[in-house]
Amino acid sequence: MKAIIISIGDEILIGQVLNTNAAFISEKLNSVGIEATRILTVGDDEDEILNAFKENYSRYDIIMVTGGLGPTHDDLTRSAVCKFFDLKLISSDEVRKNVEEFLKKHNRKWSDAAENQTLFPAGAKVIPNKYGTAAGEFIEKDNKYFIVMPGVPYEMESMMNDFVVPFFAKKKIDRHILHRTLMTTGIAESELAARLGNLDNVLKGAKLAFLPSPIGVRLRISVSGSEKDKCETKLFLIEKRIHDKIGKYIYGIDDEELEAVIGKLLTDRNIKIAIAESCTGGLIADKITNVPGSSKYLERTVVTYSNQSKIDLLHVPNKLIDMCGAVSKEVAEAMALGIRQNAGTDIGISTTGVAGPAGGSQEKPVGLVWIGYSDANETIALKFNFGEGRRRIKDRASQAALDLIRRKLLNIE
Amino acid sequence: MKAIIISIGDEILIGQVLNTNAAFISEKLNSVGIEATRILTVGDDEDEILNAFKENYSRYDIIMVTGGLGPTHDDLTRSAVCKFFDLKLISSDEVRKNVEEFLKKHNRKWSDAAENQTLFPAGAKVIPNKYGTAAGEFIEKDNKYFIVMPGVPYEMESMMNDFVVPFFAKKKIDRHILHRTLMTTGIAESELAARLGNLDNVLKGAKLAFLPSPIGVRLRISVSGSEKDKCETKLFLIEKRIHDKIGKYIYGIDDEELEAVIGKLLTDRNIKIAIAESCTGGLIADKITNVPGSSKYLERTVVTYSNQSKIDLLHVPNKLIDMCGAVSKEVAEAMALGIRQNAGTDIGISTTGVAGPAGGSQEKPVGLVWIGYSDANETIALKFNFGEGRRRIKDRASQAALDLIRRKLLNIE
Repeated sequence: MKAIIISIGDEILIGQVLNTNAAFISEKLNSVGIEATRILTVGDDEDEILNAFKENYSRYDIIMVTGGLGPTHDDLTRSAVCKFFDLKLISSDEVRKNVEEFLKKHNRKWSDAAENQTLFPAGAKVIPNKYGTAAGEFIEKDNKYFIVMPGVPYEMESMMNDFVVPFFAKKKIDRHILHRTLMTTGIAESELAARLGNLDNVLKGAKLAFLPSPIGVRLRISVSGSEKDKCETKLFLIEKRIHDKIGKYIYGIDDEELEAVIGKLLTDRNIKIAIAESCTGGLIADKITNVPGSSKYLERTVVTYSNQSKIDLLHVPNKLIDMCGAVSKEVAEAMALGIRQNAGTDIGISTTGVAGPAGGSQEKPVGLVWIGYSDANETIALKFNFGEGRRRIKDRASQAALDLIRRKLLNIE
Repeated sequence: MKAIIISIGDEILIGQVLNTNAAFISEKLNSVGIEATRILTVGDDEDEILNAFKENYSRYDIIMVTGGLGPTHDDLTRSAVCKFFDLKLISSDEVRKNVEEFLKKHNRKWSDAAENQTLFPAGAKVIPNKYGTAAGEFIEKDNKYFIVMPGVPYEMESMMNDFVVPFFAKKKIDRHILHRTLMTTGIAESELAARLGNLDNVLKGAKLAFLPSPIGVRLRISVSGSEKDKCETKLFLIEKRIHDKIGKYIYGIDDEELEAVIGKLLTDRNIKIAIAESCTGGLIADKITNVPGSSKYLERTVVTYSNQSKIDLLHVPNKLIDMCGAVSKEVAEAMALGIRQNAGTDIGISTTGVAGPAGGSQEKPVGLVWIGYSDANETIALKFNFGEGRRRIKDRASQAALDLIRRKLLNIE
């Protein structure tokens, strides 16, 4: 079964909004054995929408459409669907009931916009909308499925989860598309490729994609076939081979985040940490506190942007800053030790570096970052160079600091 | 001039990577009077790529293609271009020179992959790649422009900026597409719409889009026409009307960020701030330190996740926490005052709230956040309820704290 995703909306076309809906739909379709082989975006223009339907209808088994179902004159999808299938646009009792319930629940009054939202292509099946007034449309015809959903992400997502995915899951499509993502950090894409070497004999038709970002490279394995067991075995073997070669760089699977991984480790071992950030400016704390329950292991963080705050809050000797400079191994170590002792935690972490764009020198260029670590046994600092770009340097330094915690907890060199 | 953007790559199709390239290209084309009316994504499959070319070639003046120019067997765009235009794939001396220079600059050796990258459609014009080995392709034929660029964002972006945009700018296309985005925060989309009322008589064919996000609603005005002066006047009038109605909620224009806006205000007035974050967990500091030069006005930040750290670092009386709870007006005020006094800054800011998902109660539900503000004249705290979702609450609370600084600096009620 082949699918096309048609996204409708000027805001995507002009680049103001990213097409996250298509990405979501594609992943969900994969989970029930359906491959989307085309994503098409057109603006709020009836001719463009109709052309998109006409040109693609015959070539796909499933046509997924999102957007343009709102009550304003920019929303043209319903009328385009009616023209394409030669259906009448009628006020639907079923949709009216849903809209009434929705407005009642949110203490809102009936309006012209609400009345407009009851209009629906006669003969299409209603996909109920839990979180809004725009009904989804489901049309089964010519051995094809034509599905129209709103462009508001959470409205569309609930329709996918509650209606579309269960519908196709029941069809038991004789095709399995499995993905596994291995999350790596601390190793460049080219180095990863060199260490993995040629994997053709283990891949055999499966795909391995390298997806680099400033905080690491995701390795995405994709296997498809008609027998689920065989696909799973193959996925397992590929995953094992990769683990054998570069296991220590892998911190998680399937978009698991590093801060969640260390959160589990710290919780399980009842270890508390405190952080002193200079060049990362609070980003490490921000990441750690995104994880529910992080208050159990993060005692405090200080962002010591001024020298005075390094002296006040971390007891870094003024003389040390004068002698070595704020960006130095010595100060990074003193910061990590200072925050650990002041906070009374098991581990102290620190960052100090040149985030730029100003402030670099020949000796201490933009991108130079020292990351300090202190526990009861040792106090150390590691040197990194994270290249250019202020946000990029912050991202990379924060990820390296989190990875240092992971490696220390797991005794990985 | 109508354009289509064709994005090639499995990673986009399966939802692993967002199509940021198409958004970038679309905006840049707009700036030289070209409208992209279709964005099409296909996978790394030669038939699919060729179909995409065939179906759309006749209908567009400009065909922009990205992706699939790498050296691996997944990269099929060059061969598809050769088949489509009936060109030979030859080793190009011009491309070879560029690849050699690039590798030399990065201390990398010549390889099979590098040799492969010298292959180029004979007769196409080379678009040089500053940041990689994949050459861009430029073909002018049948009164159309067919442009192929790599999928790596910064490689594509530099080709757009250095080659594509200047090329079309020289053509002086008799069409002007102007956009202006007004950045608002602290007001809901429905309330904004109500306050703006019906703008049809001032819009007259121009478009106004509401683009909501957790940290505010962007209002995007789009005007197009053949006379630049008229377009600019119209844009100005619409912008003025909106300013008159909801000016105090507008903190910037054209994707300017709130942290940059307050950075300018603080720098100009030589005012220093310090921040005590609890529920925002370092996100305010992270945002502020994204702005170059922020070390001039941010003295320090403390993330006081534990009660002890509130006592140690902010001198919040233990008794006050016992009596009122850590999430209270009283503690928010004490935190703002404490950080201001300890850091010796002009302004102190604080946040304390329930970010969830656990820890909420009837009296203090998830989403409740107090934001404190202290300067030489006053110490206050404002109460917010930011709904559900841990990251969403952090985002909204951080933005509200930054907006409180803006409003205080500008004397906006």
